[in-house]
Amino acid sequence: MKRLKPKPVRASRTELADLMSPPDANVRGFVFGGKVLQMVDKAAGVCGERHSGKPCVTVAMERVEFLVPIHIGDLVTVKAQMNFAGRTSMEIGIEVYAEDLLNGKRSHSNSCLVTMVAVDGKGRPSEVPPLFPETPEEKERHAQAVARRKARIG
Amino acid sequence: MKRLKPKPVRASRTELADLMSPPDANVRGFVFGGKVLQMVDKAAGVCGERHSGKPCVTVAMERVEFLVPIHIGDLVTVKAQMNFAGRTSMEIGIEVYAEDLLNGKRSHSNSCLVTMVAVDGKGRPSEVPPLFPETPEEKERHAQAVARRKARIG
Amino acid sequence: MKRLKPKPVRASRTELADLMSPPDANVRGFVFGGKVLQMVDKAAGVCGERHSGKPCVTVAMERVEFLVPIHIGDLVTVKAQMNFAGRTSMEIGIEVYAEDLLNGKRSHSNSCLVTMVAVDGKGRPSEVPPLFPETPEEKERHAQAVARRKARIG
Amino acid sequence: MKRLKPKPVRASRTELADLMSPPDANVRGFVFGGKVLQMVDKAAGVCGERHSGKPCVTVAMERVEFLVPIHIGDLVTVKAQMNFAGRTSMEIGIEVYAEDLLNGKRSHSNSCLVTMVAVDGKGRPSEVPPLFPETPEEKERHAQAVARRKARIG
Amino acid sequence: MKRLKPKPVRASRTELADLMSPPDANVRGFVFGGKVLQMVDKAAGVCGERHSGKPCVTVAMERVEFLVPIHIGDLVTVKAQMNFAGRTSMEIGIEVYAEDLLNGKRSHSNSCLVTMVAVDGKGRPSEVPPLFPETPEEKERHAQAVARRKARIG
Amino acid sequence: MKRLKPKPVRASRTELADLMSPPDANVRGFVFGGKVLQMVDKAAGVCGERHSGKPCVTVAMERVEFLVPIHIGDLVTVKAQMNFAGRTSMEIGIEVYAEDLLNGKRSHSNSCLVTMVAVDGKGRPSEVPPLFPETPEEKERHAQAVARRKARIG
Repeated sequence: MKRLKPKPVRASRTELADLMSPPDANVRGFVFGGKVLQMVDKAAGVCGERHSGKPCVTVAMERVEFLVPIHIGDLVTVKAQMNFAGRTSMEIGIEVYAEDLLNGKRSHSNSCLVTMVAVDGKGRPSEVPPLFPETPEEKERHAQAVARRKARIG
Repeated sequence: MKRLKPKPVRASRTELADLMSPPDANVRGFVFGGKVLQMVDKAAGVCGERHSGKPCVTVAMERVEFLVPIHIGDLVTVKAQMNFAGRTSMEIGIEVYAEDLLNGKRSHSNSCLVTMVAVDGKGRPSEVPPLFPETPEEKERHAQAVARRKARIG
Repeated sequence: MKRLKPKPVRASRTELADLMSPPDANVRGFVFGGKVLQMVDKAAGVCGERHSGKPCVTVAMERVEFLVPIHIGDLVTVKAQMNFAGRTSMEIGIEVYAEDLLNGKRSHSNSCLVTMVAVDGKGRPSEVPPLFPETPEEKERHAQAVARRKARIG
Repeated sequence: MKRLKPKPVRASRTELADLMSPPDANVRGFVFGGKVLQMVDKAAGVCGERHSGKPCVTVAMERVEFLVPIHIGDLVTVKAQMNFAGRTSMEIGIEVYAEDLLNGKRSHSNSCLVTMVAVDGKGRPSEVPPLFPETPEEKERHAQAVARRKARIG
Repeated sequence: MKRLKPKPVRASRTELADLMSPPDANVRGFVFGGKVLQMVDKAAGVCGERHSGKPCVTVAMERVEFLVPIHIGDLVTVKAQMNFAGRTSMEIGIEVYAEDLLNGKRSHSNSCLVTMVAVDGKGRPSEVPPLFPETPEEKERHAQAVARRKARIG
Repeated sequence: MKRLKPKPVRASRTELADLMSPPDANVRGFVFGGKVLQMVDKAAGVCGERHSGKPCVTVAMERVEFLVPIHIGDLVTVKAQMNFAGRTSMEIGIEVYAEDLLNGKRSHSNSCLVTMVAVDGKGRPSEVPPLFPETPEEKERHAQAVARRKARIG
């Protein structure tokens, strides 16, 4: 069976950004972890749909650490990059940054890995193009994702 | 230094439940992973505040798998139970269930572990009561959390 | 014409719970009555769909009193229990509780009665199973609902 | 003790209106009863604040019937009118209308009565001006509210 | 080709009103310009659908000035009035008012012009009735809209 | 009186991006103009706060045309760039793009100009740094903004 034509990492690189508002935070002004995870999930979905050209559903999210508190009024940016694409599933690497707009200070808030699967009209897994890593950093991330996959499947 | 009085697991056991509505889902009616993670984060927060009697912030969320698709109209129930309480941080175990109300079918959608830290008025870590596991199942979960903690800290 | 098989009260007993957040309250931190009524309506709907296995629409809500103020950060729990099921309509009893998570104080916020009707695909009333009350408390609530119904219809 | 200067009914007459959108409805396009009750609560609050010039909280809502189904795309209008003002509490009459914008058909969806109390900065009941009904219809509603109040207090 | 029967301005005059809540504002309690523009867009849509009896989409919004700051707790009222109706497009005049409910002070917050087009089931422009201005003020607004249209088309 | 140190255009260049979901659209799946205007307002605010290091409020938005319909599932990207900075007010140029993620087609949806003013803690206009345009394109946009400003003030 013939595979689809490989696609480079840059074709699906994604960046979402949103200003944190009162509904995104608790009474003391700290943004909910759940709000950040919702943006992470959206960014991974956009990255997966750009790579596959098909609707995508979330299959797993790896351990996430919340390194710094995020406040109302901060700009949160979520960067998503395809690390690896199997036959129907994709591993996407996520970086989250928070910027205090009044002093310009930008902090790295979290990193995590999301696995998505492309689906057809009936919600069944559907084939995605192989990934074609070009730069040394992309090749390194690809190799690590392959290793993680082997470790998980055994 | 004297520790706070231990609290049993049952004192902070938590159950949130919500009906999935159109804003929680994509165009094809599948509920966003991010919506479920937001409920998980809220339930862990309620459990942590019940145990500690202090505001809590999310520090980490372990790997989450989305085992079954959830649809608009389903009732999603999130159960949270304290597994372990350290000096200021707590490990909370989460189970997520989805119920199709029209046929009564209930599926186990995910499990995950959330680490929360209690904070004082200035956002600094603040002491929490030790956990007092009573049943064999609670003791087993407590022992596993202690082992995970050792493995992580080394 | 043969009726559907009766269902016990416990088969549709429902409990929704949500943490009150800034969007649910006015500027002074008091939760809107409308937010609570929205949760009451949702809980009654879940209870009605569990009993009937059909989509349900709200037909009436009895007098609601708001006995205690609810604040941002409180956990609101709404309990719904089927009191009576006619041919297509159902009377559902609701209890609302608010819990201050930091001191564990739980207050009874409101009680009320909601009438729902099961509908078919075209929105027309559709038959529901009779209710089978088992405990003395369930039988007492059933008898009161029958009396209210008689008083209303005359 | 001297009472505040009476205010006419027309000084606090209120009309809210909103277009029903997808988040306000269930999967089949019927607007949630809870959405309508939220608008009712808001309109009663605006009417109470206009009459008293003070923040108001909801104390009770009388039986509400949902006479006609409301759909996404309908314009919902909620009219609020002060029926009676006691020392700190006010009875507000509500009428809800739904209009199908594409054919101009307008239906009376519900009526109900809301009791609000004006509060001071600490949330304690605070004095409101007496109501001064001018037209025969306003006097009739005022008399009925006084009768209801007597029947309730006994 | 025969035109549809003209409709008077009063047949589509529209007034939306909403109470500003915490999610509508930034941390310092000032309502977002975007919230007001969303209400303006909704009001113009309702006015367009009332005139044409067809779904309408926004084509352009003229320069908007935000003359006064609006705060949480204010009642915002948006008035929409049809100025001119072409074959498929309509110019709608908007006035926005903000009222501080506690002191009754009402300010004129903005004016603007919105152009909408009626569409058929496939999203293609669809014919609308001519406008029939009755009062001197309506005739004046109609003449100005015709002049603006000529200036734009040339 | 000495002015603040000039800042280059690139220091405040801003890009927000969000995935369009069901609550952002009408029943037929077309995204509301109001949703796009809300993102435009947010992006201009972020750009203004990055340039000034102070909270900013919206003062005016120029004519916006909606050139192409945007659908649920599209990724909307809003780019904001400072054109001119006066003593307390700033003109910000906005470009909106919509991308159909399943076929990768990206369309230019709108352009517009937003004027913002920096404010101090009491909401009074507050000084902002002059703008330092570096590239020919930035100098051209700066010159046009100065011309527009002269034409408006006269």
